[in-house]
Amino acid sequence: MLPDRLRSLAHLLARLPGVGEKTAQRYALYFVGDGQQLAEDLGQVLSELAQHIAQCERCGNIAELDASGKAVCRICLDQQRDTRLLCVVARVQDLLAVEASGAMRGRYFVLGRLLSPLDGIGPDELPMDRLRDHIREHAVAEVIVATPPSVDGEATALYLAKELTALSVQVTRIASGVPHGGDLEFADRITLGRAIAGRRGIDVRG
Amino acid sequence: MLPDRLRSLAHLLARLPGVGEKTAQRYALYFVGDGQQLAEDLGQVLSELAQHIAQCERCGNIAELDASGKAVCRICLDQQRDTRLLCVVARVQDLLAVEASGAMRGRYFVLGRLLSPLDGIGPDELPMDRLRDHIREHAVAEVIVATPPSVDGEATALYLAKELTALSVQVTRIASGVPHGGDLEFADRITLGRAIAGRRGIDVRG
Repeated sequence: MLPDRLRSLAHLLARLPGVGEKTAQRYALYFVGDGQQLAEDLGQVLSELAQHIAQCERCGNIAELDASGKAVCRICLDQQRDTRLLCVVARVQDLLAVEASGAMRGRYFVLGRLLSPLDGIGPDELPMDRLRDHIREHAVAEVIVATPPSVDGEATALYLAKELTALSVQVTRIASGVPHGGDLEFADRITLGRAIAGRRGIDVRG
Repeated sequence: MLPDRLRSLAHLLARLPGVGEKTAQRYALYFVGDGQQLAEDLGQVLSELAQHIAQCERCGNIAELDASGKAVCRICLDQQRDTRLLCVVARVQDLLAVEASGAMRGRYFVLGRLLSPLDGIGPDELPMDRLRDHIREHAVAEVIVATPPSVDGEATALYLAKELTALSVQVTRIASGVPHGGDLEFADRITLGRAIAGRRGIDVRG
């Protein structure tokens, strides 16, 4: 019933993460109804996006292209950062979350994906050469693996730790346990098991 | 932390129906990651949308603009339709749903909105003049009000029925009751009440 052009718009929208056919159709209809101005504005921003934004060539974070067409993100340009500390994350969203915590004063490296045998993602699809180059070039002393505490995230962390032993770098893993404000009663068994296994001495000095 | 251009992209995306800040950021990041081609394609389609698609000037359905810049939808162009039957719906989505049921052989009229005192939408915001013109022009005999069986939908149906009495047209309302395959045990009281009130004789002739 929909005109072809609107159907192809809905098809495109359905390729967004987490968007199904119904939602895509809803967005498409909004663009021809109340959202006509939005369609125009969004169309322009999206068409020009690649000319202005790219992945940081050093870490994979989002970066603005400079006049010479190079993309280096704000964090990699920041001279105040401790370059000896490198936080490895799966996705840019994770980088933003860690950065928002204010707990990381080093730099980042975005893998882009996790090892996932079920989805056919093997070690060859991880940017290991770029990661090794980064570690050598910036004389990184500690790699903090901040992949999620999931099956794929843990597998990737273990793989990274093994692969990086050849370099003189310490590989650490972020802690997994009961979250701040979380209730032990409602924590799952794996989380509680990790909380116990990862227990630390309580510092009673001052 | 995000570059300004990506933040404004996320702001635009957050204006889509049902999209919050987190989802908008997720879409925006997808456009600069794996979805770069999608950004380009979608940008083009959205930019050109208004030149090709508009609301049907007769019924409010989605229509393709013809060479002369007029927008008349496929249903209004269809000469096989019973023009004496007019189905009034709130949104284009509702039109598509009724049309997909195959139960409507007449034409449609999209109100665009429902009366909603809580949202400050009063009778002046309904396209009553256009509706009256349509009824007179096409000698409509029956107006089927297919607004949803909600508070706003019922209020709109009642208002339409009152407003259209002056015209020699029959105004009917779609049935509300227990849906096909629905369980009486789980139907809410209002639905069951309507199902009882709207009961009909059972036709036992062949």
